[in-house]
Amino acid sequence: MNEKNMVTIVVFSGDLDKTLASFVIATGAAASGMKVNMFFTFWGLKLIQREKARPKELDWMRRMFSFMVKAGPEKRPLSKMNMFGIGPMMMKKLMKKSNVPSLKEMLATAKSLGVKLTACSMTMGVMGVTKETLIPEVNNVAGVASFLADAKDSQITLFI
Amino acid sequence: MNEKNMVTIVVFSGDLDKTLASFVIATGAAASGMKVNMFFTFWGLKLIQREKARPKELDWMRRMFSFMVKAGPEKRPLSKMNMFGIGPMMMKKLMKKSNVPSLKEMLATAKSLGVKLTACSMTMGVMGVTKETLIPEVNNVAGVASFLADAKDSQITLFI
Amino acid sequence: MNEKNMVTIVVFSGDLDKTLASFVIATGAAASGMKVNMFFTFWGLKLIQREKARPKELDWMRRMFSFMVKAGPEKRPLSKMNMFGIGPMMMKKLMKKSNVPSLKEMLATAKSLGVKLTACSMTMGVMGVTKETLIPEVNNVAGVASFLADAKDSQITLFI
Repeated sequence: MNEKNMVTIVVFSGDLDKTLASFVIATGAAASGMKVNMFFTFWGLKLIQREKARPKELDWMRRMFSFMVKAGPEKRPLSKMNMFGIGPMMMKKLMKKSNVPSLKEMLATAKSLGVKLTACSMTMGVMGVTKETLIPEVNNVAGVASFLADAKDSQITLFI
Repeated sequence: MNEKNMVTIVVFSGDLDKTLASFVIATGAAASGMKVNMFFTFWGLKLIQREKARPKELDWMRRMFSFMVKAGPEKRPLSKMNMFGIGPMMMKKLMKKSNVPSLKEMLATAKSLGVKLTACSMTMGVMGVTKETLIPEVNNVAGVASFLADAKDSQITLFI
Repeated sequence: MNEKNMVTIVVFSGDLDKTLASFVIATGAAASGMKVNMFFTFWGLKLIQREKARPKELDWMRRMFSFMVKAGPEKRPLSKMNMFGIGPMMMKKLMKKSNVPSLKEMLATAKSLGVKLTACSMTMGVMGVTKETLIPEVNNVAGVASFLADAKDSQITLFI
């Protein structure tokens, strides 16, 4: 693998705006022929968790944390100006008006372009995300060693 | 171009503290002879929008969003401890006391050192930023392909 | 030094979750034989400041700022859902349940694996952090030139 041909992105924040930026870069790179890895960790895991997932096997604290941070691409907050959900609503409308695809569409595009989606095994327990509640698009569950192996051979590595 | 000689920075947050960090790295790298690209997207676009710009051709929602997020280097919030503007005020005073140049001065220094400033075309519509309201220092308006082309040849690529 | 063998991380935010992510990457990389540099700047400096440090030689504004942003690994806020300290408390409990080491333990591990810890000289004044109040684990105090020198030879450079 030519190292100029790989991009690895840590999707940490899970915010609507930051996640959008990561998918624009990921799909742009994949469309131009680069190999792209997205590594979802911490709040980013909530993006690749099924909406309304109820991980029943978890203890009450994990269930509570899982309940407080909503799952799925439609429930992402903004990193600023969230204003109890008014900000994300406005941004989604402005995205539509500006012909920017939604997060859900970008996820589908990333998938169809062969972007590899990895869920961080270490933080899944902390965030109350179980393997069973992940969306089927996720390729694998792995730890930091897997991220480092990809990043070492990538020309572009970003933490978003 | 020797790849060891290029730095590409995505300026996403537009916060006073994060933007400062990006300009310290950009001007430091440029001063040491490296080629530097700064790619302004999302909230970062507000830094390179003229102060008190009133983009009249926009619809009411974009105008409202544009109004709520103030433009220009003097109006940047802090990423933490913003406290309705007290935090940034304190930090600006502490920067002055510590002989750290202001954001406005850093922008001028970056420009004089040949740092390339690019505005992200895709998110300009979302953020209510029009080409006419950008500061004259901006070199060009471009999309993710332009960022990727720069980043692929850069030894250091950061998302800030 | 083979450039595939170095990782440089800017620790900017100082949040519990983001700092954890940076230490997981740092210790993972160091454990696999890579050379790792962590450059602490802005809020990240508070992580490597001694707890309850009272930098007496500072003026009142720096003392106030230093007081408002608590020092040490035990006092880090969360980047989201901080809820006046309930969020970090929950996350620490969930980390323990998930067998994720605490920030304090990770700092010790990083140190024992030879990770280089550098405090950013430029922002120390702004954040009210003096050399005397840094924890002994810190290797050196340096500016952006030192960061750039490391980053230029690193295969992975992250801003966290």
